[in-house]
Amino acid sequence: MSKIVRLEKKILEKNDEVAARLRKKFNGLGLKVINIMSSPGAGKTTLLEETIKRISNRVSLGIIVGDLATDLDAARMERAGCAAVVQINSGGRCHLEAAMVEKAYEEVKGKLDILIIENIGNLVCPAGFDLGEDERVMVAALTEGLDKPKKYPGMYRQCGHLVINKIDLAQVLNIDPEQFEHEALTVNPKLRVFKTSAANGNGLGEWCGWLESMVKG
Amino acid sequence: MSKIVRLEKKILEKNDEVAARLRKKFNGLGLKVINIMSSPGAGKTTLLEETIKRISNRVSLGIIVGDLATDLDAARMERAGCAAVVQINSGGRCHLEAAMVEKAYEEVKGKLDILIIENIGNLVCPAGFDLGEDERVMVAALTEGLDKPKKYPGMYRQCGHLVINKIDLAQVLNIDPEQFEHEALTVNPKLRVFKTSAANGNGLGEWCGWLESMVKG
Repeated sequence: MSKIVRLEKKILEKNDEVAARLRKKFNGLGLKVINIMSSPGAGKTTLLEETIKRISNRVSLGIIVGDLATDLDAARMERAGCAAVVQINSGGRCHLEAAMVEKAYEEVKGKLDILIIENIGNLVCPAGFDLGEDERVMVAALTEGLDKPKKYPGMYRQCGHLVINKIDLAQVLNIDPEQFEHEALTVNPKLRVFKTSAANGNGLGEWCGWLESMVKG
Repeated sequence: MSKIVRLEKKILEKNDEVAARLRKKFNGLGLKVINIMSSPGAGKTTLLEETIKRISNRVSLGIIVGDLATDLDAARMERAGCAAVVQINSGGRCHLEAAMVEKAYEEVKGKLDILIIENIGNLVCPAGFDLGEDERVMVAALTEGLDKPKKYPGMYRQCGHLVINKIDLAQVLNIDPEQFEHEALTVNPKLRVFKTSAANGNGLGEWCGWLESMVKG
């Protein structure tokens, strides 16, 4: 085994340790934690803005936002009405790690029901890093094309839930959301799939319903 | 300096060495080399298919295609009429490295004018790895949203050329390609920008003209 592979293994083992500690802490607090991952521009932030508007009067929602270099997304979530937003600036790093989340969580204010972690926009690297979450959600934009589940199988297999977003563009793209769902299920048959348009609100009821059910359940 | 940062530095230095050797070799052969990078689903492969159809009767074009897990893109380029296509399967790695290109180039058949390297779909990691190229081109889809240049500055600053693709969707997205260009130039004023729709052919003349000019020049 090469030195690089050994070191990568060590980084992942260390990350798993911190993630296990975090998971125990979150469970003890009765806090449900969701790690949201996607390609850049799939619509994670717009989806979260619309989610905040719809459920934040019933569910106490906190968001940790990973970003390479800016705080643009965190500012958008605050404007949408989320009181507990913490920004992680990854300093150019391509994924979030459990230690970053542990540190950011210290800054989250108030008692929360759900903590959403918006990962760095990247379909490869974030899949390797456990953040202590209960659920991993992937957001895929219909605009990315039908071949993406097969081309990025690691990410699709690591998630339990898939949001197929931008379905309002189905007709103009000539891509059928059902076909995208079929491609995704071919790679990971266990995925629970939501089909949404964060832009026009379609499908957000089912998505928000699932989030709320995590708290009630 | 931590052990991880030291090792990352060592990997990059080793990569730079191989890249310098490759660049010397390519220059000696009079071969122009282009490293194309983008987010997943920005349209690199469709752009290259259309490029092959338009210029491969005048320019001898070779393509090295990086992919995480499949040979779907390589098969598409071959069907479009490119005789010299070599697949690199990165085995789940999030970027191409110069050593992968050096090995793949051994399999490229025939005397070429231009070698295009299609990198892994990822807006973060590939920017750090020199592949011995003459030019770095980034493809951004209009669908990714106007905030992306500011959010992924590393990639935008590392490239000399930007293709803003999917401009046929400008009206339905209500995003002005000129505004996207402005945002990109704010992050990197030296970018030469092409605005294209690989789907309907708009703007491909200028893009192909630039490629052909590299050979004549």
